[in-house]
Amino acid sequence: MSERLIFVTGNVNKLKEVKKILSDDGQPIEIDSRSLDIPEIQGTTQEVARDKCRRAAELIGGPCITEDTALCFTALNGLPGPYVKYFMESIGHEGLNNMLVGFPTKAAWALCTFAYSAGPGTEPIVFEGRTDGLIVPARGPKVFGWDAVFEPDGTGLTYAEMPDLQKNKLSHRYKALEKLRAYLQALPTEASTV
Amino acid sequence: MSERLIFVTGNVNKLKEVKKILSDDGQPIEIDSRSLDIPEIQGTTQEVARDKCRRAAELIGGPCITEDTALCFTALNGLPGPYVKYFMESIGHEGLNNMLVGFPTKAAWALCTFAYSAGPGTEPIVFEGRTDGLIVPARGPKVFGWDAVFEPDGTGLTYAEMPDLQKNKLSHRYKALEKLRAYLQALPTEASTV
Repeated sequence: MSERLIFVTGNVNKLKEVKKILSDDGQPIEIDSRSLDIPEIQGTTQEVARDKCRRAAELIGGPCITEDTALCFTALNGLPGPYVKYFMESIGHEGLNNMLVGFPTKAAWALCTFAYSAGPGTEPIVFEGRTDGLIVPARGPKVFGWDAVFEPDGTGLTYAEMPDLQKNKLSHRYKALEKLRAYLQALPTEASTV
Repeated sequence: MSERLIFVTGNVNKLKEVKKILSDDGQPIEIDSRSLDIPEIQGTTQEVARDKCRRAAELIGGPCITEDTALCFTALNGLPGPYVKYFMESIGHEGLNNMLVGFPTKAAWALCTFAYSAGPGTEPIVFEGRTDGLIVPARGPKVFGWDAVFEPDGTGLTYAEMPDLQKNKLSHRYKALEKLRAYLQALPTEASTV
């Protein structure tokens, strides 16, 4: 492919994080970012991701990656899942905990879905990363989404309490990005296809 | 308009109910139905309704109406709202009650949104009907969605326990359809526009 890969995001910090992880082993994958307002559909996390990536590729007219995050409660069979952002906006950290008061388990998993499209008309490929944990009363800085109420299993710390280095090595986003990186690095490069 | 109005639904009972209410005062509005698989977007109930109606009009190539139902919990600032079908499928009547155990209010409102488009490229018009009530442990037949856990204020009965006639006069769907009917009856008829 001759065009540069575009990561669809309006979030500078996310772009930085993705660039860093995609360059981690000394074989950097070059990406740019673009902020696009793409409506997301309702459905499973995979359906949501594929649809968004498909539309992004059409708008961009070239290869792109998109990212979606879900927070899935075991007690709710995976919900709120892709809709967690609306719950977070509406009822905050305390509300997310309160939703689980009536259920015996506070288990949850954080799910990151990256989707890659080689360009318009190409079926997106999906890369998932999952981290299991618990929903707990908020601890740590509350600046980044629901990070303060999610405690990955075996850590004793919420995402919000962790140093970046620790979070990056076990986060759902990191796991999904590792898979995406392996895939992108195995693609034929421009040089080898000329 | 020369084409017949299409109500987008795969549900024969819904078509019957809508036909009945749209013919209630002796000035019947003729409609057909068509089952279409249209992905719904995430967003507010109005955004979801408008987008679906817009797509339906494009697929049908003529005037159409679509219908969306939401169940909005006061404790969750209106959620699960348009996503209630996923919660109902995942955790059922008991789960919907359990989600509210940790909150002081069990108040909720049922919201019906009809959208009408005059045809492709025409901005849909939205008609909302709202019925306030409480989320209660299931009573009555459990066959129709979340009807068994929603008790409209002042009735002492859940939707599922009510005779059709009583439900039809106070339901969120009836209130929205009444507005839609008034609008459609005020539209110029074929005869008057020829």
